[in-house]
Amino acid sequence: MKEHSVTIYDISEQAGVSIATVSRVLNNSNNVSEATKKKVLDAIKNTGYTPNAFARGLGLNTMKTIGILAADSSDLYLAKAIYYFEENLRNNGYDSLLCCTGYALKDKKAAIDLLISKKVDGIILVGSNFVYPDACDNKYIINAAENVPVMLLNAELEGNNIYCVSSDDYKSMYKATGELLSSGIKNILYFYNSLSYSGALKERGFRDAMKDAGINVSERQLQYFEGAREDIHGMMAQLDKVASGGHKFNGVIAADDTLALSAVKYAKSKGYKIPEDFSVIGYNNSMLASCSDPELSSIDNKLETLCQKLTEALMGVLSGEEMPKKTVFGGELIMRETTRKKK
Amino acid sequence: MKEHSVTIYDISEQAGVSIATVSRVLNNSNNVSEATKKKVLDAIKNTGYTPNAFARGLGLNTMKTIGILAADSSDLYLAKAIYYFEENLRNNGYDSLLCCTGYALKDKKAAIDLLISKKVDGIILVGSNFVYPDACDNKYIINAAENVPVMLLNAELEGNNIYCVSSDDYKSMYKATGELLSSGIKNILYFYNSLSYSGALKERGFRDAMKDAGINVSERQLQYFEGAREDIHGMMAQLDKVASGGHKFNGVIAADDTLALSAVKYAKSKGYKIPEDFSVIGYNNSMLASCSDPELSSIDNKLETLCQKLTEALMGVLSGEEMPKKTVFGGELIMRETTRKKK
Repeated sequence: MKEHSVTIYDISEQAGVSIATVSRVLNNSNNVSEATKKKVLDAIKNTGYTPNAFARGLGLNTMKTIGILAADSSDLYLAKAIYYFEENLRNNGYDSLLCCTGYALKDKKAAIDLLISKKVDGIILVGSNFVYPDACDNKYIINAAENVPVMLLNAELEGNNIYCVSSDDYKSMYKATGELLSSGIKNILYFYNSLSYSGALKERGFRDAMKDAGINVSERQLQYFEGAREDIHGMMAQLDKVASGGHKFNGVIAADDTLALSAVKYAKSKGYKIPEDFSVIGYNNSMLASCSDPELSSIDNKLETLCQKLTEALMGVLSGEEMPKKTVFGGELIMRETTRKKK
Repeated sequence: MKEHSVTIYDISEQAGVSIATVSRVLNNSNNVSEATKKKVLDAIKNTGYTPNAFARGLGLNTMKTIGILAADSSDLYLAKAIYYFEENLRNNGYDSLLCCTGYALKDKKAAIDLLISKKVDGIILVGSNFVYPDACDNKYIINAAENVPVMLLNAELEGNNIYCVSSDDYKSMYKATGELLSSGIKNILYFYNSLSYSGALKERGFRDAMKDAGINVSERQLQYFEGAREDIHGMMAQLDKVASGGHKFNGVIAADDTLALSAVKYAKSKGYKIPEDFSVIGYNNSMLASCSDPELSSIDNKLETLCQKLTEALMGVLSGEEMPKKTVFGGELIMRETTRKKK
């Protein structure tokens, strides 16, 4: 690809102004009247050329590119979201650029700056880990939103030019816990591996459902898994440790399907019959649900819909429409083979 | 992030040349002597500012950004590769920008153009689907390599500024087939879902190993799965159809772990004992290997090593070193629970 060779000479000639004036316009200087600015911008348009990256980068035209940030592209859930966004954006005539940031705040900041320096038209933050409990740590999002609209998937943050689309993780988890309880499973372990905003909502959903059923939740019943996201054996070992430590449970509600699948493998290794003697509910309704044997009951948080609606919202914002700042969808518990029918 | 406000006035003053001359340099015009060009570039450096995106975009400084192209970020194998590349690049002080292109050639072309317009320092093509059998279709890669070094993971293409790092898929599949044969399994079905360059190598490895063992391979023994990459039930149904169509098999070698996992589930559903009566070998040694029950024997094609070596090669190229055009690593069969010991 060759850079297009239009120079400010052509523009200067067409607009009938000096090169210095063209340059002032290109540099967004304030010392140019609106009328002159218009002359120059018209001249640029009139050259008949597609503006090159340089010119487009100066705001003469949109790049038609959206920046996507995700912590980890190899996380099943985030990978799926990225996939849906790419597809939706392409269907809307937009390219996308993805930065995988890892989970460190400084890398997230650097990535958002990088995308803005690439003149993206908007930014999508995929996953709730981008929003921190301490407001100061969210300054980088607020700042980014001064430049371009920022869309949050499954997270919430108030601010100008910031729009949130999420699934009601609290309610989904509350309902799933209720289902398990009403099927006769009372000794439920909550198994999780994320301390994010959405992670906190899920946990609260579990706690409240237990409380509302009159069941005290002990801290041992909430098991946080610190290891690698794919370490099925490590997860199984942790469940085994809890049980052999004297805490009995005959059900697991997991904050993600990998954890749930490990619970199924754990229960089978101990000779439990699933779902008769041991029930499991996962979260995300990912491909792991059908990889598991028996297949996982799992909460479908409607990721495809969320991604589609978020893209629509972004397109609306970019075309100047008034869009809702916050959109929340409900989830759905998909019953498969790891839960029994209601008693 | 505010755009830095350095203008060509500052540079013009510092360099002692006219604004028109600065502009010519910025526009890479030929009508400037090397001496004058140097004066201008020095002046830009001497402003003491970090060049902004605009200046860097004009080649005044490297963007320290690598473009990554992958067909589908939600494919387990590609997602993992992207993860490793991002990490390796970050450790080398490089940002990365990912475009998920889908599998259509025109979208791949558009994405590579987009990345070059973003002034990336190099491009990594993740996965063998970027190289086509027809040389004309690979012109977009050759063209891109005129601008920046292009690195291919698990694909091969000759050309200036093109470097390939791959795993020996032919040999890995040849050896895996040999292992299964020597364990006493003779009626092996080859189950695959990719027609890519690497896919073709795997298939040839299977065919040659069978041939060298004196076994004729019928076309029914090579099963191509056309459905979605996560459709475990669709895969099981296809295996069932083959068997009920009269073609008996007691072993499956799969070109990817998802297919292998479906074969395990199929065999269990038919009451086969694994590995005694039915053996399975997967490919990629992904997280699905431990999700499966029994756990999958699978070929580890050393993805992490490949990604690390490819990044090293790219860094070498960027710093002007002579690097090998082609680097090939061997794979390793990881034996787990779906294969029996040699007879």
